[in-house]
Amino acid sequence: MSKEFWFKEYHSPDHGLFFRIDRVIFQKRSEFQQIDIVESPTFGKVLILDGLVMTTDLDEFVYHEMLVHPAMTHHPDPSEILVIGGGDGGTVREILKYPVVKEIVVCEIDRAVVEASSEFLPHLSKGFNDQKVKLIFEDGVKFVQRETAKRYDVIFVDSSDPVGPAAVLYGTDFIENLKRILKDGGIVVFQSESPFTRLHIIKDLFNKLRGNFPYVSPYLAPMPGYPDGTWSFLMASHERYEDPVRNCPGNLKYYNSEIDRASRVLPNFIRSGLYG
Amino acid sequence: MSKEFWFKEYHSPDHGLFFRIDRVIFQKRSEFQQIDIVESPTFGKVLILDGLVMTTDLDEFVYHEMLVHPAMTHHPDPSEILVIGGGDGGTVREILKYPVVKEIVVCEIDRAVVEASSEFLPHLSKGFNDQKVKLIFEDGVKFVQRETAKRYDVIFVDSSDPVGPAAVLYGTDFIENLKRILKDGGIVVFQSESPFTRLHIIKDLFNKLRGNFPYVSPYLAPMPGYPDGTWSFLMASHERYEDPVRNCPGNLKYYNSEIDRASRVLPNFIRSGLYG
Repeated sequence: MSKEFWFKEYHSPDHGLFFRIDRVIFQKRSEFQQIDIVESPTFGKVLILDGLVMTTDLDEFVYHEMLVHPAMTHHPDPSEILVIGGGDGGTVREILKYPVVKEIVVCEIDRAVVEASSEFLPHLSKGFNDQKVKLIFEDGVKFVQRETAKRYDVIFVDSSDPVGPAAVLYGTDFIENLKRILKDGGIVVFQSESPFTRLHIIKDLFNKLRGNFPYVSPYLAPMPGYPDGTWSFLMASHERYEDPVRNCPGNLKYYNSEIDRASRVLPNFIRSGLYG
Repeated sequence: MSKEFWFKEYHSPDHGLFFRIDRVIFQKRSEFQQIDIVESPTFGKVLILDGLVMTTDLDEFVYHEMLVHPAMTHHPDPSEILVIGGGDGGTVREILKYPVVKEIVVCEIDRAVVEASSEFLPHLSKGFNDQKVKLIFEDGVKFVQRETAKRYDVIFVDSSDPVGPAAVLYGTDFIENLKRILKDGGIVVFQSESPFTRLHIIKDLFNKLRGNFPYVSPYLAPMPGYPDGTWSFLMASHERYEDPVRNCPGNLKYYNSEIDRASRVLPNFIRSGLYG
């Protein structure tokens, strides 16, 4: 393959990101989606699902640390964890940094993503081999519908975006089921969207979560590989989780207790967009 | 012009941003650079100098508010202000929100940028008509060399990036001259670079500033139109400026006193990159 291969992602019909590809590492059409793993000089290894960048070596630590650590450091005893999606493994890798964790159930619809990541992205997927991790290959919506036995301390919705197949993960039924399978004092975290060009999508999910949980805390992190370079997360709970941050793992590349507080401070336009 | 016109900016030889152009509003080759103003569905009006995005309607408020307000709200009496660059006018617009300001000297090398912005970007440039504003069309490096009479409370370096013609604005001589023309208790603010792919450039300027000022505070803001979507700023002073923020103007779209503090909280990889 020549060095003049490029990847282009449209973040809207009118704008997007492009980057050079040195090497195509893996390509497969699974039952659910097109899976590509490429190597880029700027982003390192990049996992692309249906043409959309999911993780890159340049910034996956920001996404995975910011999805996981705010909830894990605020919950007093996060031992039973559920991940919806998360087939690349980065979320599990971060959750495993807490010795208090007893079990991590990962409900990923596409076995082929886990297989590809296990083979080609071991820095993300290595946690799948841990005996605390239980992999279930099933539609997350159906899983939370049928789950009756188990209750969870923290649930991470680490899915693709609320357009296309993952749209149901942003629906009211799904949120009500998450609430049902959450222990008292539990926390749910969603990755949400770009606050610059998709604030209405964040607001929609924010309002649905506020209909089910008394406390919903939006927070932000920079993500160069995602649309507009800034990403949002929504943390929902029945308890009010305030500072301080507890039991933060060492050796993180992005997150620290000050970042936890700072990430929740919203610029005026996002504050008025969500609360106005 | 058809709707299939696109603009593409390489943020490195290997990655960049593209966006659709509805309309080319203005194009001119000035004595110093190529000036283009275009209209984009995503970014609104965009000012492009030598092929690099300078301001867009989508995010210019973030850049200009974050360049200006941290210094202006921390300085106890910011009355004499110098802007190096800033030919689009956005920085002056924000500075004029402080009634205490007596004079704003703008030293912009390229008269054609001010003229283009005055005609086509009035929401940015309207402040140039204010009687407090004194426009000087000169190379900023030469201006600070020859400036002997006046001393400034706050100096903003609102230049293009430290590659190409603006590189001298990031040199030791320039910084020493800024220091010389700064009043006691004065503050200098530089826009710096993307912390994801250009942290070494930020570190270089950070170290030069630390060689001349006892307090140098890096801070961050999201900028979808700039490389990697996150931008950095460096605020240097002889005094230690702590909270609280004073006299913050109302009706800002990005900045508030909590954002001031939050923007100075650095992720671990930036902290260790700058201080390690």
